[in-house]
Order: sequence, then structure tokens, then C-alpha cells
Amino acid sequence: MRVGEKPARDRAATLTVPRSVAVVGASPPEGGSYYGSRLIANLVAANPAADIYPVNPRLAGGEILGHKVYARLDDLPAVPDMVVVGIGAGAVPAVLREAGALGVRSAVVITAHLGAEADRRAFDHELATIAAEHDMLVIGPNSVGVLNGNASINASFATGADGGALRPGDVAVVGQSGAVISYLLQAFRDRALGYSWLISTGNEAAQPMEGLFDLVVDDPDTNVILLFVEGSADGPRFRRAALRARAAGKAVVMLNAGRSEAGRHAVQSHTGRIAGTAAVMEAVAAESGILVVSSYQEMFDAALALSTQSVRRAAEPHGRRAAVLTTSGGNGTVTADWLSAQGWTLPPLPDGVRAELEEICGQDGLGNPVDVTGAFAQQDRLARMSLALAKDPTLDAIFIASGAGGPRSEGMTVKLAEVRPRIAQEMYVGWVGLDPASRVHLDRAGIAAYDEPARAVAAAEAGARIRNAQIDPDLPALLDAPLRRPGTPEVRTAGAALTELAEAGVSVVPMALTETLDGADAHADRLGYPVAVKLDAPDLNHKTESGGVILGLADAAAVREATARLRDIAERQGLTDARVLVQRMVRGVEVLVGLKYDDAFGLMLVLGVGGTRAELHTDAVGVLLPTTRAQLSRRLADHRVLGELLAGYRGDPPADREALLDVVEALARWAIGHAGVVLEADLNPVVVTPDGAFVVDARAVIA
Amino acid sequence: MRVGEKPARDRAATLTVPRSVAVVGASPPEGGSYYGSRLIANLVAANPAADIYPVNPRLAGGEILGHKVYARLDDLPAVPDMVVVGIGAGAVPAVLREAGALGVRSAVVITAHLGAEADRRAFDHELATIAAEHDMLVIGPNSVGVLNGNASINASFATGADGGALRPGDVAVVGQSGAVISYLLQAFRDRALGYSWLISTGNEAAQPMEGLFDLVVDDPDTNVILLFVEGSADGPRFRRAALRARAAGKAVVMLNAGRSEAGRHAVQSHTGRIAGTAAVMEAVAAESGILVVSSYQEMFDAALALSTQSVRRAAEPHGRRAAVLTTSGGNGTVTADWLSAQGWTLPPLPDGVRAELEEICGQDGLGNPVDVTGAFAQQDRLARMSLALAKDPTLDAIFIASGAGGPRSEGMTVKLAEVRPRIAQEMYVGWVGLDPASRVHLDRAGIAAYDEPARAVAAAEAGARIRNAQIDPDLPALLDAPLRRPGTPEVRTAGAALTELAEAGVSVVPMALTETLDGADAHADRLGYPVAVKLDAPDLNHKTESGGVILGLADAAAVREATARLRDIAERQGLTDARVLVQRMVRGVEVLVGLKYDDAFGLMLVLGVGGTRAELHTDAVGVLLPTTRAQLSRRLADHRVLGELLAGYRGDPPADREALLDVVEALARWAIGHAGVVLEADLNPVVVTPDGAFVVDARAVIA
Repeated sequence: MRVGEKPARDRAATLTVPRSVAVVGASPPEGGSYYGSRLIANLVAANPAADIYPVNPRLAGGEILGHKVYARLDDLPAVPDMVVVGIGAGAVPAVLREAGALGVRSAVVITAHLGAEADRRAFDHELATIAAEHDMLVIGPNSVGVLNGNASINASFATGADGGALRPGDVAVVGQSGAVISYLLQAFRDRALGYSWLISTGNEAAQPMEGLFDLVVDDPDTNVILLFVEGSADGPRFRRAALRARAAGKAVVMLNAGRSEAGRHAVQSHTGRIAGTAAVMEAVAAESGILVVSSYQEMFDAALALSTQSVRRAAEPHGRRAAVLTTSGGNGTVTADWLSAQGWTLPPLPDGVRAELEEICGQDGLGNPVDVTGAFAQQDRLARMSLALAKDPTLDAIFIASGAGGPRSEGMTVKLAEVRPRIAQEMYVGWVGLDPASRVHLDRAGIAAYDEPARAVAAAEAGARIRNAQIDPDLPALLDAPLRRPGTPEVRTAGAALTELAEAGVSVVPMALTETLDGADAHADRLGYPVAVKLDAPDLNHKTESGGVILGLADAAAVREATARLRDIAERQGLTDARVLVQRMVRGVEVLVGLKYDDAFGLMLVLGVGGTRAELHTDAVGVLLPTTRAQLSRRLADHRVLGELLAGYRGDPPADREALLDVVEALARWAIGHAGVVLEADLNPVVVTPDGAFVVDARAVIA
Repeated sequence: MRVGEKPARDRAATLTVPRSVAVVGASPPEGGSYYGSRLIANLVAANPAADIYPVNPRLAGGEILGHKVYARLDDLPAVPDMVVVGIGAGAVPAVLREAGALGVRSAVVITAHLGAEADRRAFDHELATIAAEHDMLVIGPNSVGVLNGNASINASFATGADGGALRPGDVAVVGQSGAVISYLLQAFRDRALGYSWLISTGNEAAQPMEGLFDLVVDDPDTNVILLFVEGSADGPRFRRAALRARAAGKAVVMLNAGRSEAGRHAVQSHTGRIAGTAAVMEAVAAESGILVVSSYQEMFDAALALSTQSVRRAAEPHGRRAAVLTTSGGNGTVTADWLSAQGWTLPPLPDGVRAELEEICGQDGLGNPVDVTGAFAQQDRLARMSLALAKDPTLDAIFIASGAGGPRSEGMTVKLAEVRPRIAQEMYVGWVGLDPASRVHLDRAGIAAYDEPARAVAAAEAGARIRNAQIDPDLPALLDAPLRRPGTPEVRTAGAALTELAEAGVSVVPMALTETLDGADAHADRLGYPVAVKLDAPDLNHKTESGGVILGLADAAAVREATARLRDIAERQGLTDARVLVQRMVRGVEVLVGLKYDDAFGLMLVLGVGGTRAELHTDAVGVLLPTTRAQLSRRLADHRVLGELLAGYRGDPPADREALLDVVEALARWAIGHAGVVLEADLNPVVVTPDGAFVVDARAVIA
């Protein structure tokens, strides 16, 4: 049984509010097992009043950190909400069975099986079986643990939270990697930022990441979700959770490990899992408004902005107009560079605002960035200038770029915190060398502060992107299309593929297939000149390179001659089932529309630059199927070069974008409804003219 | 007078070894001026034994932190090597004149003029005049100060170095921004990393950044140079310093602020300077092997790697083969992803090495990344596995990806430091939550350690790039081409430009200019069909869009008809001096070769994708002139799409790359030797065939 399939009542009774925790393998601070001692120490430090049951037969009857030790789970005075297991792998299954029999609903297995690969797989399988038999949520093995900031429960051996109660907050972290949990735990500790959940999913033997993602989407205390994933083995479920998060207005930030071949190989070898590829994960992210990051720091920085600011909540689009206050020219310049690189503008300030700033500052000629002089001497100057800037309602955010200041910083940040409630705009600070006390003033006031402008701007942009993703007008339906497993692949020639597509209602260029010169001639007459003729045969490779494509034929004689040449080629190469495809020539923007089947996620549609230069443009965009037309349109808009071409490049008339979307939609319908599994399809080019779009060439592999 | 024009002896006597420092405007720790008190406090904390002379008429006769206070510079017992000025702007010129008259050779002006813009400019001008009159090196105004780690002199008001002596090292920092100085000062302090110089150049009224860059290139204690620049107002000098650094084998890392329009605007408003554009600065960096970064953190990370590793010194190219040891699957995957994204490979391990690793680890099935289990329990495991990996001589670097470990980390890092001398490969550590003590063990051993894999990989790549740039076979000559100031711009039509280029020895497509139908006909016959005809007139805009280009004419009749059409257009548009350009048609790869004149740096040559789709490819590469053919060839190789096209795209024969380089070289010679200043030239396309390259269209603006 997996999370998300349980009724909500059951979930709430187990992992979500673990009021009592048993630690099997508990050890005293000195002389015992490392994991066992850290687990108890963390639980007690975070919440001395919680019901904590150390379990260890060798120490039964004694106490660890004031908590009585029991020999086994059966001996406990009550059934614990959660059992944490930190003992040798061999003993784990029996303990889990015991817990299951007692009615324990959730367990976290810290233990890592260190044996040979086959033994590890068998171990994982046994854990999954026990979890299913007892309807128990089992996290791990090889988990760092589970922490809840709102309940102050630290059921982990992580070291970053040393020193007491956990800070409550609205950020949840679900990560396959212990390292990212450790990183965030420390980063949170160093700031006035709290979290709802930190869940180390470990090897996910019984409980995959997708179910825990689901769980935090449903958690009312969670507004921001940070995911560290190594692909997803259950694509539809992951996609559904991501779309549910979006529907619930929760911001999701994802680091997808295994983007590279080397990384995927690493994932496979340490998890045995075949995960969705990077391209597919990016398509999911685009669809559901997940922000993709590639480092732990970026992840934390985004969380800090999302948690302290209200960027996620507004209903209107997030603009990108900024004012920069700087106490250091160079720092202000760097801020402006970073803002520009992210598409933000630094508009000139309204006269009234500028006059007020100059009055405060005693300097003329202020621009944007606003050079603040004397900010360190006049402790309230930054605050007053922020208030003045806030009078420009067209601004979306105010950035403060500063450096050092030593003991003088704190007074300045206190003043900033004081005026914060009177400022509607977002506020970001990039302050080199800001002391911890000053940072806490800013954190508490809802001003996201970073140690350099680059990070402040990246975090602001993260907020803008997530908010704009949240307000997209339509949400793809939460479809439960089950994945179909492909059979034996079979290749369609262009002629066969185009015929099939045309029958399915996809707009294909006027065409005909023939085997004779007369046929070609007659078809060409009917289609209208100029035409192209193409050799069409299952065994033909490199159609263009072997001379099998002849374009721009203006009359019947040319068609007959070209057809004869194609038949020669077919004869020389000994091709069977060779035919000649006659097509009317069309001119327009050449687009590549592709389909690709992913083992974890199913069908993905791809849009890119088409024609013979397709490979020079590496910036295709992907859309998972099924999808909506609005989503297809948005993704098409994400492609810079296609956008420029379709809009009418260098004086060309604009191409018929809606007709292209018709083709794409019809293709998607065809693929979804196909009796077989469309493993791969390339429509290249789809020619988009000012009044129509036509598939000109295609190949497909169906299984 | 400026640094670099002084004889080396003089320089050595002043800024490079400031044995005695006077502080004008010195204040006691409490109750005085902020800057004055911080300056004295920093100088004394860094080096209590140095000759420090506080100067302050109101406190004369007293002591500040044990140093006697003097009323004025004249009263000092000796002429100080350096005078630091931290008083009101009005009093600064007199103090500098006094210092100059005494024979002081270097001064640092901390003071920032806070008045109106015109007054500030006048102040800057006065400082420059005094510096010139007294042959004195004057840094600032608005400088944070100057620090020397090897002499432990802290003549700055920066707060990051609090707490005593500065650490000696081989990293120099020259920065227009105080913020970057503060950032690096703190980052250095937190690690066992020292520096030779930190120089805050301030407003550069008298001493531009370029001269101080020159100075640290000559400094024997400096191996790594970090530059924070806001463009360069003296391009040739900057370029020369950069090339000298490369010749001296010094690694240079640059953050160029003002890359964006908004950023450039900010630079101009706070410095009044027109600086080299981002494209030009990137061309300088490419030529001289400067590593360009965009954040302070990246800059520090690269410095840490360059200073602790020997990556700059070897003579052979730096490979990109890595092994990853990881104590956490996810962290290892992220490391592999980052390495792949930077073009590194993770080769399979040799059988012998793998067997040894499996023996140490007690686990079978190890790959690369190598999953290390039990690393925290067996303190020497990472060290032993590193030694085993080092037996694969094809590896360039060993990466360790780890997380947390709490108190157990230190033992592990001590062991790693112990084996470091026996490992030839570079070593990088991405260790989440590593404690400070452990980091210091790694720093001292020459293992660059970061708090997450992303940073470790970026730093390793920085080292690889810098080393590969150092060993480029030829170095552009250190040319002293003076910048020429352009006069009134004059536009050349394609016909005129092509004629001039052909006369200068640039390979232009066979062509002729005519005004008559007969002429066109005769020229076409001579040139050989097919030909193109193009309308050529000074007032003609949008030649292609207005029908002024007719291609693919196969015979005399077609040429006459097309020429007549062009003459019609000329007549209808009322064009004067209209002629018809007849050209032989050539087919091949279309390249754009451009020239652009930069006010600070002079001529820059640009290579990009040519033809009608040029604007879709935004990845042009630049080369400053004069240059070498080898440099042109390298930059051409940097262009991915051109590389693919020239190599023979989709079955085309390879194009004649050397002929293209001939065209580019001849164009550069033409521009450099031109009687006027070539403000702009676009050769688009240059058609590169399998046996030649030909300029087909051109425009130029000469001034």
C-alpha cells in the first residue's frame, strides 16, 4: 500500500503527526552505535516532552537521556505512531513485522544494507512486501530520517539541527539524497526560516518519492515544496502530484539529479531504477510550474524568497520592474546586470520619487540604480529611501545592494524591518558580509537577504517564475492515462506514416503514392505544379543523401524524368515495396514536431526548428501527453527561434500559428488513440504557411 | 604619472612594500570618525610592529592604539611610504600636495566626495593633476583601501579581516568595487587561503585599474589575479596587461560588471566612464585566457582551486577525466551531472583499481561514481580509496562527494590530507556541512573543498580552462596600436565595399559593376552562369526586401531582363549613382564576418552564422585586432554551429576552412591599415565552398 491510496484520516494518524516515536537500536550518547545514539539525541533535543521509546534488548530497563529503554516493541506501554529502525540489516524485517503486527502505521528504516547487489535487492523487496502486508508506510532503507518542524520531531541522525527545538515553517523537503537534507537543515538553521517536513526517502524500497510528494501537497502546513529527485520511476503519479501542487497554489522547486548520461548511470547503479529522462522532467516542470534548479544553494535561496515573501499568492502576473538602492556603485552595477540577464527592467524613477530620494540623500542626479551615499552614517536612510521608492506603484520589487558596514549594519536592518509593513513591493537584499543578527531582522520582516546580488536576483526571478506559472489560465486535466508497454517496434515509411496521419485528420500536404510514371504524372497534374517526388521504401536509409528526394518539378516531363530516376535508384539498391510519393510543394516556416515514448512517463511531444538545419538548433521544447491546446501554445511560445520565424522573419508574412497548433493537437490525438504504442515519430518538416500548416515528411516507429 | 610607466625600482619603493603608513584623519576607537578609527584599528591589528603614523591636528601629541598622533604630515619623523587619507573632501587636495612635496610616493584616498556631480568631477580632476605633478601613485577617491597579505598591511576600513594578522598568499585582487573586496576578504578569512594584494581602486580619478592590474602582473608574490572591473576605459592597456599576465603564467579571473545596458548605464552614471562593451571584454578574455565569472562566489571558488592546486603550472593540456568517490548516492549523481555538463567524462575504472576498491569497501559491483559505504565508520576509507584511484594514471581529478558526518568528518579529512602528497591527480571535495576544522585540513593539504558538488565542479572546470588557455601554442604579439579617433562616418555600398576589399587582397566573388544592359550581359558571359544581379546605390535601404537582389540567372536574356527590372526600381525610387552589381553564384556555407569599432578597445572582428538566418543565431565570437591567425582559428573553433557547418553538415563536403581564415586575415589587415577608421563592416555572406571562400555581400562604414 502506498501513500495517496490511503484515506486522509489514516495518513493524518501516522506520519503527519507522529506524537510518539520508538527507536529500535537506540544507543546511549557514548559507547553505542553511531546512528542509534544520534537518533535518540536528536529526538530528545528537538522535543524532550515527546513520547520517545528507546528499544534495545541489551539496555532494557535502563534509561537513555531520561527515557526508559525497552527490550522490544511488544513491551512498549503504547503503540507508537512511528518506529525508527537503526539496527543491522538482518534484523530489520523481523522488527518491521513486529511493528506491523502491533498496528504501527509508519516506519523509517535508517539501516543501509551493505551487502552484495542481489542481497540488497532482496532486502528491498522484503521491506516492500512487509509494508504491503501490514498496510504500513515504510520509508527507506538508507534514509537519514524524517523531521517535522511544526511538531518539533527530529527522527533522523542528521547533524545539522544540533542544539534544540526545530523551527516551525511552511517549507517541506522531500529528497532521495541525505546530502541535500543535511544541506538544507544547516541552511535553515542559520536563518530564521522554518520547515514543515524534511523527509529523506532513502532507497524507496516500499515507499517511493512520489507518494511522499503527494503527502506534502496535502499537508495544510506546507506552502513550499523542495524536491530532490533522481528522475521518477512512476511518471504519471509524479505528474499528477505536480499538477495537484499547482492546483493547490503550492510552489515546487526541484533539483533533478541524473540529468546527464553519467548521472543516469549512477542513479541506475545505486537504485536499480530507470527514471524519466531530463527532457521529460523538464516537460513536467514546464507544465506544472515547477522551478528547476541545479544546485542546493539555488534551492535554498528560492525557498527563502518563497517562504518570506508573498510572491506565490497574488492573482495577477508578476512583473519584472525593479529599483535598486546601492551603497556601493559596483555592487549596484552587478545587480543591474543580473536583473537584465533575467529580463527585468530598471525603469527611470518618477520625478516626485526622485526628488524625494535626492532630498533624503542630499545628492542630485540620482538614477536607477540609486546610489545611496551616507547610508552607514544615517541609519534610517535605506529605510526612508525604500519608503520613497514604494510610492512608485509600477515597481514590482526593491533591491538593496550593500556591502560590509560592520557594526553599523544592524541599525540599518532594524530600520528596514520597521518600514517593511508599509511597503507593498517585494524586497530583496544582496548584502556582502551581513552579520547574522542583521539577517535575522530581515528574515523576520519578510525581506529575503543574500550575501551577494547574484543570489538575490536569482531568488527574485524564482519567485516571479513560480507566481506566473501559478496563474496560467488553464490547468491540464489530471489524467490518469495508464502507461502502455510497447511490443515489437515496426517502422512506418514516410508514405505510410503520412497516409495514416492524413486519415487521422492531421493536415498533410496534398500527396499521392504511385508505382508508375503515368501515375506520377497524373497525380502531379491533379495536385498542381510545382511538385516534389520522393522514393518511399521500407529499406531505404538516408533518403535525401541517396538522391531519393527531387524537388521543384515544374511540369509533367520533369516529373516523368524524376520518377524514372527514383525507380532506377530503387532497382540499383534492390529495394522491395518501393513506391514514389508525389507531393505538392509548399513554402513556409519549417517546424519539427516529434513524439517520443518514455518508459516512466509515456508520450512526450517535442517542438523544434525543422528542415535540414534542425540539428543545428538544440533548443527543442517538450510537452507531456495528454495535454491542452493552451499548454501547447505556451510551450511553442517558449521557443525563441520558432517564435521569431513564425512571427514573420525578415519581412516574411506571419505564419499560421493556429494551423500549426491544429497539426500538433491532431498528432497528439492520433498518438494517444493509436492501437499500438507510438515509440517515436518525427514530422519534419511541418511547413507552416501564412494560411495553413502541412506535414511534408514523417517517419514513425509503432510498437 | 601612472603605474607601469614608472621604472620598477620606484614602484617597489612605494605601493609594493609599504613599510610605513600615515593615516590622515586617524581617530581613536571611540568617539571619532568611523573611517579614521577603522583605518588605524585595521593597521594596528594586522601589524602592530609596523611604522604607523596617525595624523590628526585635534589629537596631536596623544596616542591612538599605542601610536603617537601627529598634527600634520610635515611633523612625521620620516617620510612614510604610503599616506592614507580619510578626511573631508575639501581638505584632501592640500594633504595630497603636502604629501607630494614631502616625496611620498603613494597615497590612498578613502574619502568619497558627496557633492553635486560637477563638483565631484572637479575633485577627481584635481586629484589627477596633483598625482601627475608630484609623480605620485594616488588610489581612489572612494577606495575601501589597500591590503597586503605578505607584509600584513591593512590600510583599509574593511571589516572582514577583523582579528589580527593577514594571511600571506599568492592571490591578488584588484577591484573597482568595495563590495567585492569585502566579500573576498571574508571568504579568505574563513579558509586557510591568503592573498598578496587586495586593492580597492575606488573612483580611479588618478590611477586607473589598468595600472594596478599591471602592477600585480609584475608582483613576484602573485600567481592568481582576481579582477572586478566595470569595463575598461583604456582598452589597449588592459589588453596588454592581460596578455602579459598570460605570458607570465598568471591565472586571471574576471567579473566584468556593466555587461547589460542597465549595468553600463549605472557604470557611466557613477564613474562618468565609457567602458568597453561586454562583447569586447569577452574577446579580451578569450584571447588572454582570462576566466570570466559572474558572481563573487564563483570568483572565490576559482581562486581557492587555483591557489591550492597546481593546475596552472603544468605544460600539457588539462584533460577532463574524473573519478567520483561518494558517501551519498544522490550527491554522487549531482557531481556526475555537473561534470558531464562541463564536458568531463567519468571513465570506467581499470579492473585492478576496481578490485582494490572493492577489497577496501567489502562491496562488489562498484562503478564510477564509486559508492563508498562505511566511510564514516572507517576513518581512513576515503583516503585509501583515493590512493587506489590514483593508480589510474589516465584520471585528471578525483572528486569526493560527501555530506555531514558531524564529529566524524575531521578524522576522515586528516587521513585525506595525509595521503594527498602521494596522489598526482587534482583533488576536489564537495562536502555538505563540512565543519571549519576539517576544511582547514583540506585547504592546507591542497585539496579544494566546497560545500556542495556544484561548486567543486565549477572550480575544477575553472582550473582546466585556465590551464588550457595558458598552454596555447602562440601568444598574440603585445601590440601597442594606438587608438584612432573616428571622424565623420561614411557608408560604402556593397559594390564599393567589395571593390575596395578585392583591391586589398580579400577574396571576393567574381563580380563587376555596370550601368547598362549590355554591360551586365557582357560581364555575366565573362563571369560564367549562373549569376546574380543586385542593385547598388548609396540611398538604397533594404536591398533584398525592395526586390533589389535577383539570383540564379541562367542566361543572357534573364540577365538583361533582371537588369532592366533593377533599373526600374532605381528610377521609381529616384536613386542617384545607382549601378548594377553582377556576380557569379557560388554555393557553400554562409558565414558572417564583421568588424566593429569600440571606443575603448578599437577594432573587433566578429564571426557568426551568415546568410538570411544570421539573426537567429545569437552566438557570434569576437577577436580583438590586431591578432594572429592561430587566435582566429581558435575562436572559429569556439563557434559550435559554424564548426558543424564547415565540417560538412548532413553529408555536404567539408568547406575550405583555411580559405575562410584567409578572408578573415585579409579583412583584418585591410581594416588595420585603412586610412580611415573602419567603424563597422558586415561581410554577409562569406560563402565557403569546398575549395575557396568568397565575400558575396558587404557593407562598411568608414570614418
